[in-house]
Amino acid sequence: PASLRRRPARLITLGFLGAIAVGTLLLSLPIATTGRRATLLEALFTTTSAVCVTGLAVVDTETFWTPFGQVVILALIQVGGFGVMTVASLLGLLLSRRIGLQSRLVAAESTHSTALGDVKRVLLGVLRFTLAAEAVVAVLLAIRLMVAYDATPGHALWSGVFHSVSAFNNAGFSIYSDNLMRFVADPWVCLPICAAIITGGLGFPVLLELWRLKRSRRLWQSSRWSIHSRLTIGTTVVLLVVGTLVFLLAEWNNERTLGALDTPGKVLAAFTQAVMPRTAGFNSIDISALNNGTWFFTDMLMFIGAGSAGTGGGIKVGTFAVLAFVIWSELRGDPDVTVLDRRLSRTTQRQAVAVALLGVAAVVVPTFVMTVTTTEFSLDAILYEVISAFTTTGLSTGITATLPGWHQVVLVCLMFLGRLGPITLGTSLALRERQRLYRRPESAMIIG
Amino acid sequence: PASLRRRPARLITLGFLGAIAVGTLLLSLPIATTGRRATLLEALFTTTSAVCVTGLAVVDTETFWTPFGQVVILALIQVGGFGVMTVASLLGLLLSRRIGLQSRLVAAESTHSTALGDVKRVLLGVLRFTLAAEAVVAVLLAIRLMVAYDATPGHALWSGVFHSVSAFNNAGFSIYSDNLMRFVADPWVCLPICAAIITGGLGFPVLLELWRLKRSRRLWQSSRWSIHSRLTIGTTVVLLVVGTLVFLLAEWNNERTLGALDTPGKVLAAFTQAVMPRTAGFNSIDISALNNGTWFFTDMLMFIGAGSAGTGGGIKVGTFAVLAFVIWSELRGDPDVTVLDRRLSRTTQRQAVAVALLGVAAVVVPTFVMTVTTTEFSLDAILYEVISAFTTTGLSTGITATLPGWHQVVLVCLMFLGRLGPITLGTSLALRERQRLYRRPESAMIIG
Ligand SMILES: [K+]
Ligand SMILES: [K+]
Repeated sequence: PASLRRRPARLITLGFLGAIAVGTLLLSLPIATTGRRATLLEALFTTTSAVCVTGLAVVDTETFWTPFGQVVILALIQVGGFGVMTVASLLGLLLSRRIGLQSRLVAAESTHSTALGDVKRVLLGVLRFTLAAEAVVAVLLAIRLMVAYDATPGHALWSGVFHSVSAFNNAGFSIYSDNLMRFVADPWVCLPICAAIITGGLGFPVLLELWRLKRSRRLWQSSRWSIHSRLTIGTTVVLLVVGTLVFLLAEWNNERTLGALDTPGKVLAAFTQAVMPRTAGFNSIDISALNNGTWFFTDMLMFIGAGSAGTGGGIKVGTFAVLAFVIWSELRGDPDVTVLDRRLSRTTQRQAVAVALLGVAAVVVPTFVMTVTTTEFSLDAILYEVISAFTTTGLSTGITATLPGWHQVVLVCLMFLGRLGPITLGTSLALRERQRLYRRPESAMIIG
Repeated sequence: PASLRRRPARLITLGFLGAIAVGTLLLSLPIATTGRRATLLEALFTTTSAVCVTGLAVVDTETFWTPFGQVVILALIQVGGFGVMTVASLLGLLLSRRIGLQSRLVAAESTHSTALGDVKRVLLGVLRFTLAAEAVVAVLLAIRLMVAYDATPGHALWSGVFHSVSAFNNAGFSIYSDNLMRFVADPWVCLPICAAIITGGLGFPVLLELWRLKRSRRLWQSSRWSIHSRLTIGTTVVLLVVGTLVFLLAEWNNERTLGALDTPGKVLAAFTQAVMPRTAGFNSIDISALNNGTWFFTDMLMFIGAGSAGTGGGIKVGTFAVLAFVIWSELRGDPDVTVLDRRLSRTTQRQAVAVALLGVAAVVVPTFVMTVTTTEFSLDAILYEVISAFTTTGLSTGITATLPGWHQVVLVCLMFLGRLGPITLGTSLALRERQRLYRRPESAMIIG
């Protein structure tokens, strides 16, 4: 815990690198694969994709890996999701202390012993939430698979656990070659998975706050909610509604996607496909068959991503909402940025700008490098792939396996960067913000 | 001048709308066209493209318009370029006064009579610079056209004036159907045009400062240069060098672009094509034949654009540089943003963030609308077209004339928005920044 306080970014980076090394080793074993052994790149790509809960795949999860390989993948997903949720929550805790604000996670003073207590409390809290949510969804899925699909109890349970863990951790891996496409019109499968995804994506601080408010019977007094929870939940709801509507409008007549379904099926599939880019990455319809306008819209949803300190990726809905408020105040000519009844701290504003702009750079530069070094892939497909990797979404137009090897290495780096970059930037860098004793003379510039 | 001080944004908007109305009327006259009369949309699109110095075209400038029509287009370009340069310089002047900083444009106090004097001084200054630069380039081009291309003196002079005005105002219109492609390997045509483009694109405040420093023999004492000039010139040079290198690397073997030229020709064409996206929009090579990686790179150059209070568009190099410094300070954990030896004012930082993020929105939303409502155009082409219109660059992959009519209307709105949006946002909105008497309690958030 002492080192976690000193160098949290370094610790989580080393932890992820360690997990990737172990995973790559295990997936390279002969017992991990059904046929030939996995190449180093295949094992590395799959491991990174699992640990960073992305879900992009260069080989088919159902047929290429043995049950042993699939268990390794599942374990990597759980370790990755749990690790990020825990560390991000702890960083958020350290940050709220450092900037002198009342933390809702702890009440005690920041001494070494209580810090240790905090770490335990966060670890146990995340563990409890994770296991509870995953267990509920796994049971629901297993029952449905036995009742409606004649699955054996063994397969139903395994499939239920796999998809439940994959969903809560926003991983998007499936043990079926067609992902969730066979369940496109089945709300008993799609909705529990969506619920797990949204819950995991909200982030631990929001979940903890809601749970505490519920216990003290004040859940419906929205004035009790923190700014963070209100922005995260509000933006999530807006994006889900808008996403569902856009998918419905853009794909209603596309015979290869929504066009083949009846109206309730269309609505279910559109809602499911609006949940997935934020940033779970399952697919119940064929992504390669979507219109390129829908791809571009999905790009934006993926980039925004899910909630902070949760299992999802992207720049985070809170970051997006803060930027919207920053621009709104600028347009109004208001020197303060006011969110609901609070003034946003300048540090928060600057973090949001840095995370968003560096996120743009992290998408634009690899997209440029990949488009300029190949001629066979369109910008649509490459941009989709890059954003999907950086935001750890895992949706793909289908080009992942056919990309040149070094492009796959670029994607591996992007998944890693996308999983750890925004978190460490948004919190641990702010922890070392320092004061200047000497301030230079101020200067303005003509802008625009 | 009084109204200019009160409502500068409204005045420039009305002025542009008036110019567009008159231009549309003139280009709708039978004497403006060689064959059939122009439709309302063709006249409106061409006028807006000219006034907003964009250069996108739905009809061929050489064959569709009569000399009368071409003179109207040239006049619209000159009015548009002069109007923006003047008003942006005046806004910059008002802004530097308002925020209490020493203005380099005037020394007197801000009374009504000196304000009138300022307006005259800026108008005359811009006029003098414009005419001087345009005259030199027009003569150089006319001589070259007579000497090397056997042009008649009349045609050479007309062509020289047209391309010189079009270049200094960063308009990109040409009276040749192939734009500048016939001159791809001719440095005596390409380089004067590039020089006019770069000069016009630096912006009046920079030009005036350099000229004053030169007169007082202190041009080479770079510590005398303002932050604005140093950032604008420095970023421009970096972007030109990087642009040339990327074009060379990406297109060296493309037989349809650089591949057909010898090495000096390759370098000249690459440099010319690196100048054009910032944001003149001539082309000496076939844009539709570029690799899609080069398109995407051009997208980025166009978005960054040229200097503030000049004839170019985009979010402006100064804005881009300020954002880079903001992120750099954030990464260093430095609470102040230091540029060279100055601390950047908070207002400047917020303006840069607002201009850039609203610029992203102004590109992303129309791109989404256009991709989702057509199936025949790829994201590459639509994104290129939208960025080209918003940044008033005028480069095109060739789809402008074949887009549906209401997409062309979207482009008309984008050109208008792109020409006036960043300027008015960046300055006039800052003019009405107000203080709050009551500040709400501060709040921080988890970001990333
Ligand atoms: K995912
Ligand atoms: K232009």
